[in-house]
Amino acid sequence: MTATTTTWVAELQSALGDAEVLTDPDVTASYARDQAMLAPAGMPAAVVLPRSTADVVAVMRVAARHGIPVVPRGAGSGLAGSSNAVDGAITLVMTRMDAVLEVSPADRLAVVQPGVVNKALRDAVATDGLFYPPDPSSYDWCTVGGNLSTNSGGLCCVKYGVTTDYVLGLEVVLADGRVLRTGRRTVKGVAGYDLARLFVGSEGTLGVITEATLALRPAPARPVTLVATFATTAQTGQVVERVVTTGLVPSLLEVIDNTCIRAVDDLLEAGLDRDARALLVAQSDTGGAAAAAEIDALAALCRDAGADLVHTTADAAEGDLLLAARRMAIPALAQLGSTLLDDVAVPRSRIAAFLDGCDRISADRDVVIGVLGHVGDGNMHPTICFDPDDAGQRQRAFAAFDDILDLGLALGGTITGEHGVGSLKVDWLEREIGPVSLDVHRAIKAALDPRGLLNPGKVFRRAAG
Amino acid sequence: MTATTTTWVAELQSALGDAEVLTDPDVTASYARDQAMLAPAGMPAAVVLPRSTADVVAVMRVAARHGIPVVPRGAGSGLAGSSNAVDGAITLVMTRMDAVLEVSPADRLAVVQPGVVNKALRDAVATDGLFYPPDPSSYDWCTVGGNLSTNSGGLCCVKYGVTTDYVLGLEVVLADGRVLRTGRRTVKGVAGYDLARLFVGSEGTLGVITEATLALRPAPARPVTLVATFATTAQTGQVVERVVTTGLVPSLLEVIDNTCIRAVDDLLEAGLDRDARALLVAQSDTGGAAAAAEIDALAALCRDAGADLVHTTADAAEGDLLLAARRMAIPALAQLGSTLLDDVAVPRSRIAAFLDGCDRISADRDVVIGVLGHVGDGNMHPTICFDPDDAGQRQRAFAAFDDILDLGLALGGTITGEHGVGSLKVDWLEREIGPVSLDVHRAIKAALDPRGLLNPGKVFRRAAG
Repeated sequence: MTATTTTWVAELQSALGDAEVLTDPDVTASYARDQAMLAPAGMPAAVVLPRSTADVVAVMRVAARHGIPVVPRGAGSGLAGSSNAVDGAITLVMTRMDAVLEVSPADRLAVVQPGVVNKALRDAVATDGLFYPPDPSSYDWCTVGGNLSTNSGGLCCVKYGVTTDYVLGLEVVLADGRVLRTGRRTVKGVAGYDLARLFVGSEGTLGVITEATLALRPAPARPVTLVATFATTAQTGQVVERVVTTGLVPSLLEVIDNTCIRAVDDLLEAGLDRDARALLVAQSDTGGAAAAAEIDALAALCRDAGADLVHTTADAAEGDLLLAARRMAIPALAQLGSTLLDDVAVPRSRIAAFLDGCDRISADRDVVIGVLGHVGDGNMHPTICFDPDDAGQRQRAFAAFDDILDLGLALGGTITGEHGVGSLKVDWLEREIGPVSLDVHRAIKAALDPRGLLNPGKVFRRAAG
Repeated sequence: MTATTTTWVAELQSALGDAEVLTDPDVTASYARDQAMLAPAGMPAAVVLPRSTADVVAVMRVAARHGIPVVPRGAGSGLAGSSNAVDGAITLVMTRMDAVLEVSPADRLAVVQPGVVNKALRDAVATDGLFYPPDPSSYDWCTVGGNLSTNSGGLCCVKYGVTTDYVLGLEVVLADGRVLRTGRRTVKGVAGYDLARLFVGSEGTLGVITEATLALRPAPARPVTLVATFATTAQTGQVVERVVTTGLVPSLLEVIDNTCIRAVDDLLEAGLDRDARALLVAQSDTGGAAAAAEIDALAALCRDAGADLVHTTADAAEGDLLLAARRMAIPALAQLGSTLLDDVAVPRSRIAAFLDGCDRISADRDVVIGVLGHVGDGNMHPTICFDPDDAGQRQRAFAAFDDILDLGLALGGTITGEHGVGSLKVDWLEREIGPVSLDVHRAIKAALDPRGLLNPGKVFRRAAG
């Protein structure tokens, strides 16, 4: 540890207490990375675990005084390296600020600290018959603060939208240690700029979220479930298009492709149709006759498209089993090798073209790609499976990862539907948004964090690189 | 016209053509104000009516070259002076850029120019069975660009949210004339900061919106309507609270108070209960049995709360008649004198307290206040009726306007639910958001419009005042 580091670490320890400031490299190394294999990461000089907004203020003041970068981090479930460490920086781990401060059924909102686990919030509001929709796959261990920072989605989005759609207000500690409270407790409000939604999805580059006021929904009914299999990508795409054009709004509409089907069938011995090109799972949570009608209409669309199998059930346990084929797709693919999970969103009219494109990439690069995704909102997660010890295969896998982003952009889509840019897709962001938008990003970053202390190098580069 | 003005006006005429650049004071004066009586307004030096993004770029370049302020404006339906003229400035009237460029049923979105009238967009997408929800009361003449700039709401918000919830992407001409394209055509996307939602609601202070990509919804079913009257504010508030806590989501939930009821009854001879303290109108657009069940559940809540009258109808024409009592409330109040329409949002648990507070203000200030509002989302529009030729009454009316904002803030609400800050509530904004948020607003403004050319003096002051 350099003398300078010793100085600011001592200041942190003096302000927060020794137990909240970790510097043992064996310990801090465990906070260096999230789940994104390809994303670059450094080593933190210190890991700080604040217990209060005042602690975060103290950290930011020390950081500002000494010009030390700060990387905010939740549970580390990220998939783009957004919270990957920066060499010599402070990694600010928000997991101890995990309180649900308030649940108000009367105003249908919750006030939480950022470290609360998504599932803990869901469980806390469920006791009042309420529902916090955003449900990333890591919902049982990811934190709401991380969800806010990356504007997470999940399986709910086709009906319920993403994290930003639930944000009423935020408390944010700014780069200079000042505390911003923005937003409101009311349903509507247009007093000033929508700063809350600027911080949401900014991946810790503009401030540290220390509290959030979140809108809730009435608890949905138990779902009715449909599963259908198709012989072609054209049929699969047709169902999604017709769901959109006929105005059906299922509460879940997911796809897995043949590679996933076989991997899941190998893992679960589920008796799936191993020759199906794609399997769709859908749910309606509208309840009662309306849900049955919704699922029947969807079943009719699947049959019209030429589905080989269409099966529906109102039994919740059977529905969970059917959904397991989708939920287990990633663990099943992991049996085939290391996995690289990509994340692009395309217009919903381009699903068949996207599935076909992934096939071409798989053939061209000679790597296995299993495609799964939130097909109802066009957010697809092609997952490349490869042997990490085979240098050639590794190289081809990385190339396929980029090809998929290319394909997404070519179809009018985006390089990230819900995982974020992080340190993984910085070059790709520049390509997607272009030079004017990049300048605007830099101008806003400079306005809020002129010294570039907050999560440097993430999302975009500060200056032309 | 000064020599300098002559110079830049000539440059505008040379770039855009004489017909798009108006300088006759008799003509330009008609573009000086929106509908907000109390909001300060100046006189434009020129009014420009661009026909294309290139025209807007040309205007911003001339403005930047000469340091001339620019005030973007739609139809002038605003209620906060957001588009009121600034002395010596260019008023940029977007009404000629009124094309619906694309309606995509397959991706359930529309691409529009900002001058399109809200109703024209609604009609254009209705032919494809689609629905653009935001419905400000001025929907038959306000422009979508104005709606975007103030993040407009309307009667739909209790179920469908506000304008920002429908914005996928924007094209914006920046203060220096560069064209920013931000956002996307996909349902989901987290590539970079949510710039689109930063521009939405920024009231023309950060850029000029020249195109918008807007999400659409499936067309709703014909509504089932309920009307109920109550003897007390406590009963009225109880129904709203129970709607929230029981998880009912009507497509419309509106209130008018006794003053409005009498004014409407005088105007329409509708046979309303002139002694009722409040009248609620609600609708469900879920369709079929689900709608009937929703309205029955709401009727039961009204009866439980002690409603004097509860009436429901599935007949669309009768529903329109019942809703007319709410829709005609403002014209009816206008029969009583000049009207000052306020706009606050309070938490939905505070409706009774808000109605009682307006009563107190009416008594204290000795002015008539008719309260109407989107009670289902807490966005209330107390409307002060006064004789503008009576100086004392005028003064008391203005004081009551401020008292209502005070009341809204005291109840945990906001000074504007959907009309915006404009030039009307600049002082109040500072009070609501506080010094740190004000600094952040200023920093973002300075980052995007360093010379302060775009709509100066609106929303907040650039420097401490």
